[in-house]
Amino acid sequence: MMVSVDGFFEGPEHDLSWHNVDAEFNEFAIEQTKAVGALLFGRRTYELMKSYWPSEQARQGDPAVAELMNTAPKIVFSTSLAGGQETEYWRNVTLMKELKKSEIEKLKEASQKDLGIFGSNNLCVQLMALGLVDEFRIMVNPVAIGKGTPLFYGLPGRFKFGLSESRQFASGNLLLRYRPA
Amino acid sequence: MMVSVDGFFEGPEHDLSWHNVDAEFNEFAIEQTKAVGALLFGRRTYELMKSYWPSEQARQGDPAVAELMNTAPKIVFSTSLAGGQETEYWRNVTLMKELKKSEIEKLKEASQKDLGIFGSNNLCVQLMALGLVDEFRIMVNPVAIGKGTPLFYGLPGRFKFGLSESRQFASGNLLLRYRPA
Repeated sequence: MMVSVDGFFEGPEHDLSWHNVDAEFNEFAIEQTKAVGALLFGRRTYELMKSYWPSEQARQGDPAVAELMNTAPKIVFSTSLAGGQETEYWRNVTLMKELKKSEIEKLKEASQKDLGIFGSNNLCVQLMALGLVDEFRIMVNPVAIGKGTPLFYGLPGRFKFGLSESRQFASGNLLLRYRPA
Repeated sequence: MMVSVDGFFEGPEHDLSWHNVDAEFNEFAIEQTKAVGALLFGRRTYELMKSYWPSEQARQGDPAVAELMNTAPKIVFSTSLAGGQETEYWRNVTLMKELKKSEIEKLKEASQKDLGIFGSNNLCVQLMALGLVDEFRIMVNPVAIGKGTPLFYGLPGRFKFGLSESRQFASGNLLLRYRPA
Protein backbone atom coordinates (compact mmCIF):
# COMPACT_ATOMS: atom_id res chain seq x y z
CA MET A 1 0.00 0.00 0.00
CA MET A 2 1.32 3.39 -0.96
CA VAL A 3 0.60 6.04 1.69
CA SER A 4 1.42 9.69 2.22
CA VAL A 5 3.29 10.89 5.32
CA ASP A 6 -0.07 11.97 6.71
CA GLY A 7 -1.41 8.44 6.31
CA PHE A 8 -3.71 8.66 3.28
CA PHE A 9 -3.75 5.94 0.63
CA GLU A 10 -5.61 8.21 -1.76
CA GLY A 11 -6.38 11.89 -2.03
CA PRO A 12 -9.83 13.34 -2.71
CA GLU A 13 -11.55 11.73 -5.73
CA HIS A 14 -9.13 8.78 -5.64
CA ASP A 15 -6.16 11.03 -6.45
CA LEU A 16 -2.94 9.01 -6.72
CA SER A 17 -0.94 11.65 -8.60
CA TRP A 18 1.31 12.09 -5.52
CA HIS A 19 2.81 8.59 -5.93
CA ASN A 20 6.57 8.86 -5.92
CA VAL A 21 7.73 6.36 -8.49
CA ASP A 22 11.19 5.87 -9.99
CA ALA A 23 13.36 3.10 -11.49
CA GLU A 24 14.19 1.63 -8.07
CA PHE A 25 10.50 1.51 -7.22
CA ASN A 26 9.70 -0.23 -10.51
CA GLU A 27 12.39 -2.81 -9.90
CA PHE A 28 10.92 -3.46 -6.45
CA ALA A 29 7.40 -3.71 -7.92
CA ILE A 30 8.60 -6.25 -10.50
CA GLU A 31 10.38 -8.40 -7.89
CA GLN A 32 7.36 -8.27 -5.66
CA THR A 33 4.90 -9.16 -8.41
CA LYS A 34 7.10 -12.04 -9.57
CA ALA A 35 7.12 -13.45 -6.04
CA VAL A 36 3.33 -13.55 -5.88
CA GLY A 37 1.31 -16.60 -6.93
CA ALA A 38 -1.98 -14.76 -7.33
CA LEU A 39 -3.27 -11.23 -6.86
CA LEU A 40 -6.40 -10.47 -4.84
CA PHE A 41 -8.45 -7.42 -5.75
CA GLY A 42 -11.46 -5.58 -4.47
CA ARG A 43 -13.85 -4.41 -7.17
CA ARG A 44 -12.68 -0.81 -7.40
CA THR A 45 -8.96 -1.54 -7.57
CA TYR A 46 -9.66 -4.33 -10.05
CA GLU A 47 -11.47 -1.95 -12.39
CA LEU A 48 -8.69 0.64 -12.03
CA MET A 49 -5.98 -1.92 -12.81
CA LYS A 50 -8.00 -3.47 -15.62
CA SER A 51 -8.37 -0.10 -17.29
CA TYR A 52 -4.63 0.58 -17.04
CA TRP A 53 -2.40 -2.50 -17.39
CA PRO A 54 -3.81 -3.95 -20.62
CA SER A 55 -3.58 -0.54 -22.31
CA GLU A 56 -1.11 0.29 -25.05
CA GLN A 57 0.30 3.02 -22.78
CA ALA A 58 1.10 0.61 -19.94
CA ARG A 59 2.42 -2.15 -22.20
CA GLN A 60 4.81 0.24 -23.93
CA GLY A 61 5.71 2.53 -20.99
CA ASP A 62 6.09 -0.20 -18.39
CA PRO A 63 6.36 -3.50 -20.29
CA ALA A 64 7.79 -5.69 -17.51
CA VAL A 65 5.18 -4.83 -14.89
CA ALA A 66 2.39 -4.83 -17.49
CA GLU A 67 3.33 -8.34 -18.64
CA LEU A 68 3.35 -9.56 -15.03
CA MET A 69 0.06 -7.88 -14.12
CA ASN A 70 -1.65 -9.01 -17.30
CA THR A 71 -0.67 -12.68 -17.01
CA ALA A 72 -0.74 -13.22 -13.22
CA PRO A 73 -3.67 -15.17 -11.80
CA LYS A 74 -6.12 -12.63 -10.38
CA ILE A 75 -8.96 -13.13 -7.92
CA VAL A 76 -11.58 -10.41 -7.75
CA PHE A 77 -14.03 -10.11 -4.86
CA SER A 78 -17.23 -8.45 -5.92
CA THR A 79 -20.95 -8.97 -5.49
CA SER A 80 -21.75 -6.61 -8.38
CA LEU A 81 -19.41 -7.66 -11.18
CA ALA A 82 -20.64 -10.16 -13.74
CA GLY A 83 -18.31 -12.93 -14.89
CA GLY A 84 -16.69 -13.07 -18.32
CA GLN A 85 -14.68 -9.85 -17.83
CA GLU A 86 -11.64 -11.20 -19.65
CA THR A 87 -10.02 -9.34 -22.50
CA GLU A 88 -7.11 -10.25 -24.68
CA TYR A 89 -4.57 -8.78 -22.28
CA TRP A 90 -6.24 -9.09 -18.88
CA ARG A 91 -6.36 -12.80 -18.36
CA ASN A 92 -6.57 -15.32 -15.56
CA VAL A 93 -9.36 -13.60 -13.66
CA THR A 94 -11.47 -15.53 -11.15
CA LEU A 95 -14.52 -13.81 -9.73
CA MET A 96 -15.52 -14.56 -6.14
CA LYS A 97 -18.92 -13.29 -4.98
CA GLU A 98 -18.22 -13.87 -1.31
CA LEU A 99 -15.25 -13.46 1.02
CA LYS A 100 -15.11 -16.68 3.02
CA LYS A 101 -12.32 -17.37 5.48
CA SER A 102 -12.19 -21.06 4.60
CA GLU A 103 -11.96 -20.30 0.86
CA ILE A 104 -9.03 -17.94 1.37
CA GLU A 105 -7.32 -20.45 3.60
CA LYS A 106 -7.70 -23.06 0.85
CA LEU A 107 -6.24 -20.63 -1.69
CA LYS A 108 -3.29 -19.96 0.61
CA GLU A 109 -2.66 -23.65 1.08
CA ALA A 110 -3.02 -24.47 -2.61
CA SER A 111 -0.66 -21.68 -3.73
CA GLN A 112 3.06 -22.43 -3.97
CA LYS A 113 3.74 -18.72 -3.69
CA ASP A 114 2.34 -15.92 -1.53
CA LEU A 115 -0.94 -14.28 -2.37
CA GLY A 116 -0.69 -10.53 -2.83
CA ILE A 117 -2.94 -7.49 -2.60
CA PHE A 118 -1.92 -4.21 -4.19
CA GLY A 119 -4.13 -1.48 -2.80
CA SER A 120 -7.72 -2.71 -2.32
CA ASN A 121 -8.12 -1.08 1.08
CA ASN A 122 -11.64 -2.39 1.80
CA LEU A 123 -10.70 -5.95 0.94
CA CYS A 124 -7.55 -5.65 3.03
CA VAL A 125 -9.51 -4.45 6.09
CA GLN A 126 -11.94 -7.37 5.70
CA LEU A 127 -9.04 -9.84 5.46
CA MET A 128 -7.42 -8.26 8.54
CA ALA A 129 -10.64 -8.76 10.51
CA LEU A 130 -10.57 -12.45 9.52
CA GLY A 131 -6.92 -12.80 10.56
CA LEU A 132 -5.87 -13.67 7.02
CA VAL A 133 -3.11 -11.13 6.35
CA ASP A 134 0.37 -12.41 7.18
CA GLU A 135 2.39 -9.39 6.16
CA PHE A 136 1.80 -5.71 5.42
CA ARG A 137 4.05 -3.69 3.13
CA ILE A 138 3.45 0.01 3.50
CA MET A 139 5.39 2.40 1.30
CA VAL A 140 5.46 5.86 2.88
CA ASN A 141 5.85 8.46 0.13
CA PRO A 142 7.68 11.64 1.23
CA VAL A 143 4.72 13.97 0.82
CA ALA A 144 1.78 15.09 2.94
CA ILE A 145 -1.40 15.63 0.92
CA GLY A 146 -3.68 17.20 3.56
CA LYS A 147 -6.87 15.36 2.70
CA GLY A 148 -7.90 11.89 1.59
CA THR A 149 -8.84 8.44 2.79
CA PRO A 150 -6.75 7.08 5.66
CA LEU A 151 -4.95 3.76 5.35
CA PHE A 152 -7.11 0.88 6.66
CA TYR A 153 -10.21 3.09 6.44
CA GLY A 154 -13.11 1.11 7.88
CA LEU A 155 -11.06 -0.77 10.46
CA PRO A 156 -13.51 -1.30 13.32
CA GLY A 157 -10.97 -1.09 16.17
CA ARG A 158 -7.30 -1.26 17.07
CA PHE A 159 -5.00 -3.55 15.17
CA LYS A 160 -1.51 -4.18 16.55
CA PHE A 161 1.52 -4.83 14.40
CA GLY A 162 5.06 -6.05 14.83
CA LEU A 163 7.64 -4.20 12.74
CA SER A 164 9.72 -6.66 10.68
CA GLU A 165 11.85 -4.34 8.60
CA SER A 166 12.09 -0.92 7.06
CA ARG A 167 13.87 -0.09 3.84
CA GLN A 168 14.83 3.35 2.62
CA PHE A 169 14.64 4.09 -1.10
CA ALA A 170 16.79 6.76 -2.77
CA SER A 171 13.58 8.58 -3.80
CA GLY A 172 12.73 9.21 -0.13
CA ASN A 173 10.13 6.45 -0.12
CA LEU A 174 10.28 4.25 2.95
CA LEU A 175 9.02 0.69 2.90
CA LEU A 176 7.65 -0.58 6.22
CA ARG A 177 7.07 -4.30 6.65
CA TYR A 178 4.76 -5.30 9.46
CA ARG A 179 3.21 -8.56 10.59
CA PRO A 180 0.14 -8.81 12.78
CA ALA A 181 1.28 -8.68 16.46
CA MET B 1 4.94 13.64 16.69
CA MET B 2 3.63 10.23 17.65
CA VAL B 3 1.42 8.71 14.96
CA SER B 4 -0.37 5.43 14.41
CA VAL B 5 0.32 3.26 11.34
CA ASP B 6 -2.89 4.66 9.86
CA GLY B 7 -1.56 8.20 10.26
CA PHE B 8 -3.50 9.59 13.22
CA PHE B 9 -1.80 11.68 15.90
CA GLU B 10 -4.74 11.23 18.24
CA GLY B 11 -7.77 8.98 18.43
CA PRO B 12 -11.33 10.19 19.01
CA GLU B 13 -11.64 12.54 22.01
CA HIS B 14 -7.88 13.17 22.00
CA ASP B 15 -7.15 9.52 22.84
CA LEU B 16 -3.40 8.90 23.23
CA SER B 17 -3.71 5.62 25.12
CA TRP B 18 -2.24 3.75 22.11
CA HIS B 19 1.19 5.40 22.58
CA ASN B 20 3.83 2.70 22.67
CA VAL B 21 6.29 3.84 25.31
CA ASP B 22 9.16 1.92 26.91
CA ALA B 23 12.58 2.56 28.49
CA GLU B 24 14.26 3.08 25.10
CA PHE B 25 11.59 5.62 24.16
CA ASN B 26 12.05 7.47 27.45
CA GLU B 27 15.80 7.62 26.93
CA PHE B 28 15.23 9.06 23.47
CA ALA B 29 12.71 11.58 24.85
CA ILE B 30 15.22 12.71 27.48
CA GLU B 31 18.05 13.12 24.95
CA GLN B 32 15.77 15.01 22.62
CA THR B 33 14.43 17.32 25.32
CA LYS B 34 17.97 18.04 26.57
CA ALA B 35 19.00 19.04 23.05
CA VAL B 36 16.24 21.63 22.81
CA GLY B 37 16.71 25.26 23.83
CA ALA B 38 13.02 26.08 24.13
CA LEU B 39 9.72 24.29 23.59
CA LEU B 40 6.93 25.77 21.49
CA PHE B 41 3.36 24.87 22.31
CA GLY B 42 -0.09 25.48 20.95
CA ARG B 43 -2.72 26.20 23.58
CA ARG B 44 -4.24 22.74 23.82
CA THR B 45 -0.97 20.81 24.06
CA TYR B 46 0.28 23.39 26.55
CA GLU B 47 -2.71 22.83 28.82
CA LEU B 48 -2.35 19.06 28.50
CA MET B 49 1.37 19.18 29.38
CA LYS B 50 0.80 21.70 32.15
CA SER B 51 -1.76 19.43 33.78
CA TYR B 52 0.61 16.44 33.63
CA TRP B 53 4.30 17.25 34.05
CA PRO B 54 4.12 19.32 37.26
CA SER B 55 1.98 16.63 38.92
CA GLU B 56 3.23 14.40 41.74
CA GLN B 57 2.52 11.40 39.47
CA ALA B 58 4.79 12.64 36.66
CA ARG B 59 7.54 13.84 38.99
CA GLN B 60 7.70 10.48 40.74
CA GLY B 61 6.93 8.17 37.81
CA ASP B 62 9.11 9.93 35.27
CA PRO B 63 11.43 12.24 37.21
CA ALA B 64 14.05 12.90 34.49
CA VAL B 65 11.60 13.96 31.78
CA ALA B 66 9.44 15.84 34.32
CA GLU B 67 12.42 17.86 35.52
CA LEU B 68 13.35 18.73 31.93
CA MET B 69 9.81 19.64 30.91
CA ASN B 70 9.18 21.66 34.05
CA THR B 71 12.35 23.72 33.83
CA ALA B 72 12.76 24.16 30.04
CA PRO B 73 11.91 27.54 28.55
CA LYS B 74 8.42 27.27 27.06
CA ILE B 75 6.70 29.50 24.54
CA VAL B 76 2.94 29.21 24.27
CA PHE B 77 0.98 30.57 21.31
CA SER B 78 -2.54 31.46 22.28
CA THR B 79 -4.98 34.29 21.78
CA SER B 80 -7.21 33.11 24.62
CA LEU B 81 -4.83 32.34 27.49
CA ALA B 82 -4.18 35.05 30.04
CA GLY B 83 -0.64 35.64 31.26
CA GLY B 84 0.56 34.70 34.74
CA GLN B 85 -0.04 30.96 34.26
CA GLU B 86 3.07 29.93 36.14
CA THR B 87 2.98 27.49 39.01
CA GLU B 88 5.70 26.29 41.32
CA TYR B 89 6.68 23.47 38.95
CA TRP B 90 5.74 24.76 35.53
CA ARG B 91 8.13 27.62 35.04
CA ASN B 92 9.74 29.61 32.26
CA VAL B 93 6.57 30.17 30.28
CA THR B 94 6.32 32.99 27.74
CA LEU B 95 2.95 33.70 26.23
CA MET B 96 2.78 34.91 22.62
CA LYS B 97 -0.57 36.20 21.35
CA GLU B 98 0.43 36.13 17.72
CA LEU B 99 2.44 33.84 15.46
CA LYS B 100 4.73 36.13 13.48
CA LYS B 101 7.35 34.78 11.12
CA SER B 102 9.87 37.47 12.05
CA GLU B 103 9.43 36.77 15.78
CA ILE B 104 10.07 33.05 15.31
CA GLU B 105 13.10 33.79 13.15
CA LYS B 106 14.44 36.01 15.92
CA LEU B 107 13.86 33.24 18.47
CA LYS B 108 15.69 30.75 16.24
CA GLU B 109 18.63 33.11 15.81
CA ALA B 110 18.81 33.99 19.50
CA SER B 111 18.70 30.37 20.64
CA GLN B 112 21.97 28.46 20.98
CA LYS B 113 20.02 25.22 20.67
CA ASP B 114 17.18 24.04 18.44
CA LEU B 115 13.62 24.99 19.19
CA GLY B 116 11.28 22.01 19.62
CA ILE B 117 7.60 21.24 19.31
CA PHE B 118 6.15 18.12 20.89
CA GLY B 119 2.72 17.52 19.42
CA SER B 120 0.85 20.82 18.86
CA ASN B 121 -0.41 19.83 15.42
CA ASN B 122 -2.17 23.14 14.62
CA LEU B 123 0.87 25.19 15.55
CA CYS B 124 3.08 22.86 13.52
CA VAL B 125 0.91 23.25 10.42
CA GLN B 126 1.01 27.04 10.78
CA LEU B 127 4.80 26.96 11.11
CA MET B 128 5.06 24.68 8.05
CA ALA B 129 3.04 27.18 6.01
CA LEU B 130 5.51 29.89 7.06
CA GLY B 131 8.50 27.71 6.10
CA LEU B 132 9.77 27.70 9.67
CA VAL B 133 10.13 23.98 10.38
CA ASP B 134 13.61 22.63 9.65
CA GLU B 135 13.08 19.03 10.69
CA PHE B 136 10.20 16.67 11.37
CA ARG B 137 10.49 13.70 13.69
CA ILE B 138 7.59 11.32 13.27
CA MET B 139 7.40 8.25 15.49
CA VAL B 140 5.20 5.61 13.88
CA ASN B 141 3.70 3.43 16.61
CA PRO B 142 3.00 -0.18 15.53
CA VAL B 143 -0.76 0.05 15.84
CA ALA B 144 -3.66 1.14 13.65
CA ILE B 145 -6.46 2.86 15.58
CA GLY B 146 -9.12 3.16 12.85
CA LYS B 147 -10.31 6.66 13.68
CA GLY B 148 -8.83 9.94 14.78
CA THR B 149 -7.21 13.15 13.59
CA PRO B 150 -4.66 12.77 10.78
CA LEU B 151 -1.13 14.06 11.15
CA PHE B 152 -0.81 17.64 9.84
CA TYR B 153 -4.59 18.05 9.95
CA GLY B 154 -5.43 21.44 8.48
CA LEU B 155 -2.59 21.45 5.95
CA PRO B 156 -3.99 23.46 3.03
CA GLY B 157 -2.16 21.58 0.24
CA ARG B 158 0.73 19.27 -0.58
CA PHE B 159 3.92 19.47 1.41
CA LYS B 160 7.00 17.63 0.14
CA PHE B 161 9.63 16.11 2.38
CA GLY B 162 13.09 14.66 2.06
CA LEU B 163 13.75 11.59 4.19
CA SER B 164 16.87 12.07 6.32
CA GLU B 165 16.89 8.95 8.44
CA SER B 166 14.76 6.24 9.94
CA ARG B 167 15.46 4.47 13.21
CA GLN B 168 13.86 1.29 14.40
CA PHE B 169 13.14 0.88 18.12
CA ALA B 170 12.95 -2.53 19.82
CA SER B 171 9.32 -1.75 20.74
CA GLY B 172 8.36 -1.69 17.06
CA ASN B 173 8.23 2.10 17.00
CA LEU B 174 9.89 3.61 13.96
CA LEU B 175 11.30 7.13 14.00
CA LEU B 176 11.19 8.96 10.66
CA ARG B 177 13.23 12.10 10.26
CA TYR B 178 12.24 14.37 7.40
CA ARG B 179 13.28 17.83 6.27
CA PRO B 180 11.20 20.04 3.99
CA ALA B 181 12.04 19.16 0.34
